[in-house]
Amino acid sequence: MTEHDMKSEDFRQYGKQLIDWIADYLDQPERYPVLSRVKPGEVKGQLPAQPPESPESFDDILRDFDDVIMPGITHWNNPAFMAYFGTTGSLPGILGELLSAGLNANGMLWRTSPSVTELEEVVLDWLRQMVGLPDSFKGVIMDTASISSMIAIAAAREALNMGIRQEGMAGRSDLPRLTMYTSEQSHSSIEKGGIVLGIGQQNVRKIEVDGHFRMKPDRLAAAIEADRQAGYLPFFVCATVGTTSTTSIDPVPAIADICARERVWLHVDGAYGGNAAVVPEMRHVLAGVERADSFVMNPHKWMFMPIDFSAFYTRHVDTLKRAFSILPEYLRTAEGSTVTNFMDYGVQLGRRFRALKFWFMVRTYGVDGIIERIREHIRLAHVFEGWVCATSGWEVVAPVPFSTINFRACPANLPAEQWNDFNERVLSAVNATGEVFLSHTKLHDNFVMHLAIGNIRTEEKHIARAWKLLQQECGRLGGE
Amino acid sequence: MTEHDMKSEDFRQYGKQLIDWIADYLDQPERYPVLSRVKPGEVKGQLPAQPPESPESFDDILRDFDDVIMPGITHWNNPAFMAYFGTTGSLPGILGELLSAGLNANGMLWRTSPSVTELEEVVLDWLRQMVGLPDSFKGVIMDTASISSMIAIAAAREALNMGIRQEGMAGRSDLPRLTMYTSEQSHSSIEKGGIVLGIGQQNVRKIEVDGHFRMKPDRLAAAIEADRQAGYLPFFVCATVGTTSTTSIDPVPAIADICARERVWLHVDGAYGGNAAVVPEMRHVLAGVERADSFVMNPHKWMFMPIDFSAFYTRHVDTLKRAFSILPEYLRTAEGSTVTNFMDYGVQLGRRFRALKFWFMVRTYGVDGIIERIREHIRLAHVFEGWVCATSGWEVVAPVPFSTINFRACPANLPAEQWNDFNERVLSAVNATGEVFLSHTKLHDNFVMHLAIGNIRTEEKHIARAWKLLQQECGRLGGE
Repeated sequence: MTEHDMKSEDFRQYGKQLIDWIADYLDQPERYPVLSRVKPGEVKGQLPAQPPESPESFDDILRDFDDVIMPGITHWNNPAFMAYFGTTGSLPGILGELLSAGLNANGMLWRTSPSVTELEEVVLDWLRQMVGLPDSFKGVIMDTASISSMIAIAAAREALNMGIRQEGMAGRSDLPRLTMYTSEQSHSSIEKGGIVLGIGQQNVRKIEVDGHFRMKPDRLAAAIEADRQAGYLPFFVCATVGTTSTTSIDPVPAIADICARERVWLHVDGAYGGNAAVVPEMRHVLAGVERADSFVMNPHKWMFMPIDFSAFYTRHVDTLKRAFSILPEYLRTAEGSTVTNFMDYGVQLGRRFRALKFWFMVRTYGVDGIIERIREHIRLAHVFEGWVCATSGWEVVAPVPFSTINFRACPANLPAEQWNDFNERVLSAVNATGEVFLSHTKLHDNFVMHLAIGNIRTEEKHIARAWKLLQQECGRLGGE
Repeated sequence: MTEHDMKSEDFRQYGKQLIDWIADYLDQPERYPVLSRVKPGEVKGQLPAQPPESPESFDDILRDFDDVIMPGITHWNNPAFMAYFGTTGSLPGILGELLSAGLNANGMLWRTSPSVTELEEVVLDWLRQMVGLPDSFKGVIMDTASISSMIAIAAAREALNMGIRQEGMAGRSDLPRLTMYTSEQSHSSIEKGGIVLGIGQQNVRKIEVDGHFRMKPDRLAAAIEADRQAGYLPFFVCATVGTTSTTSIDPVPAIADICARERVWLHVDGAYGGNAAVVPEMRHVLAGVERADSFVMNPHKWMFMPIDFSAFYTRHVDTLKRAFSILPEYLRTAEGSTVTNFMDYGVQLGRRFRALKFWFMVRTYGVDGIIERIREHIRLAHVFEGWVCATSGWEVVAPVPFSTINFRACPANLPAEQWNDFNERVLSAVNATGEVFLSHTKLHDNFVMHLAIGNIRTEEKHIARAWKLLQQECGRLGGE
């Protein structure tokens, strides 16, 4: 008789062992250095170059996991991980991923698991209500905001009704150059989407920002106007609610006015910032988004979802479907178009059961619990901001609308032209302690540090420790 | 004090309960009807239209999971799921997903978890060796074959060196129409990739197949020649090893000759069939693939990975990187290009730790164990094929190179023009029993049934039961 799967009793034993392992890990994630200390090639060098011919014991595998893999993990779960955007793979979210893997349902079609499709419709409608968008917005779960934004660009292109789906873009004398617009502070995925879809990097206009890193609407209008004059075809604008570096909020209402007037698709990237709108006093950050054609927010960034979970919304599902739907015979079903087949709304055919983890989390925490947790992150950010502002030789370099602070050391005893190098060295030294992990960005050519609070376990003591380390290393490196 | 996560002891309790639930489920997945019997809207109708404001108990959530969600699951785990391609989310694979969710590491950059990057490099090199590809093939894990194939088209477009990344495709008088080629039996994702990338559906040539549903190389050569004559620019050919309907194998060596002569990128889609190459006597199915420019195979189809896991390989990583790499300041790291940053090789920035589940599975089974399991699926398919061939009033309609059989009833007492309807009714009736789930396709305008064996728990008794049900329903519906 042929072998089947791992033995059921082994799965039970090791599964429970892993549940305890994860619980222990998340009880005290600070045991590990936040930023991995391995050198390039160090993990690979400890792994066999060939796969094993014969079965190995799961005890051996778990021992190697602890000895070889764990040292090479940078701990996004550590409450002192404040680089990029701090995230949380919440415990109910982990249970959702476990059960989803256990079911291994593929929701490519409604009939290949009706619950995968219908729970997705339900929880994305819940999320829509939670952030206050109108019910004209229909949602689809994507893996990442990069894909969501690419999908948005593709839908906008289809909305042109210029036969691009059918005829393509190359070698057509009837098709002008297409242009798209986003701020110089927006995420690189917008540019990447333009590259992949054949719009071209040089046709992605980076609109200038104001002193608070927000897109200048008059510059947007002028750029669109100039492109029209040049015979180009503006078709897509991306505004951002919570840009990647400073979390600035583009003036969506003014941008929506321009897009409406110019009949250009407006996409709003709220991958990070959109999550804050669940907090009533933060709801205003999505002002104007009700007029957008599409919108993305990532619960895997700041709403406690293990990666991946990106929520894409559009008011034009028919356009989306027109951009992507292909129905080969082998995927035709009796239900036909009376049901939602999510394969029609994006690139991917295969679809994981991601709605389950969101359903587990939102019911475990309740919406009030989610609000409370996100509100606390914002409070902590303002506490940290206050400490920096109150300390000579340091400055906060951008407004703090969410839970992210950009700041730098400006040591009076060093010439300003050395501050960039100095801040880079301070940051490296702080990260090398393994006690905290911050990232950086550049603003007006200034190297600045970036501290983002989004982990559910982050408390005031963690930001206090980060602040102490920053000041210590600043002093040790000669800053005053 | 603000609430943090679910309580650790609750996670331990419910996590272990879910481990037992999954073990019980997979001990006997036949308890549930394979194909869900819910009506459209039935799941949604039992769920609240608004999200819960307050926390709910996890017991309630799990009760709803059993009562509301489970009836809407189509059981890909059932050994009698033989529709599309039978798949397996193996037990070690599930444990890998669990631990990956627990870590919640995002491998967007090497430094954001070196182990995520380096284990991915290692296991994709193991897989490369397992299917016998040369070490010039470098791998990246994608989510689905749809994305992998889209990535391949983008790399091929970049390889043209016509400035498309920078200038785009629209409104350029220096750019001819671009054309791509695949067989009329290839997967819809190739066409979708052409649509998304702006090549245009009408510029995706569907090359005629021979009597065994394999692309005719002379027709490919003629189509390329005709397009060149018309002033178009052929740039991409996709050959398939294991097409979606009949699992036919395009003649890759002959196609590779043409692509080499014409200097056109050759991509091989082995999403399903590529997995079989791990079996020594099946290695030949990848003959010629060593000359391809890119290749995809999906371990989540037929190598025991829970969805998602698509393995993309290319001999031209530099071209791939040129097509996709963007490095904003906030993603710049000290390691620079001395390490692999997987964000440079595709659309998505965020990256789950998928290598873990493959590492768990391959070590638990051993390569020999994987071979044995896949070999058994192929044996079972030939057993089923034998039964159909030996039975009057039935026919196998395509060769069976892997583990998939396409067949139909041809009842002598019914006129041939009624066979399509008849087969459709037999299939519906069989699927309605809940004991088995098969899918269908159309070949030469004939409706045919499609039975694919890929589940690790499928045994001879399951295919015997399927065969009995098919004959029963055929008789009951009046076929002789």
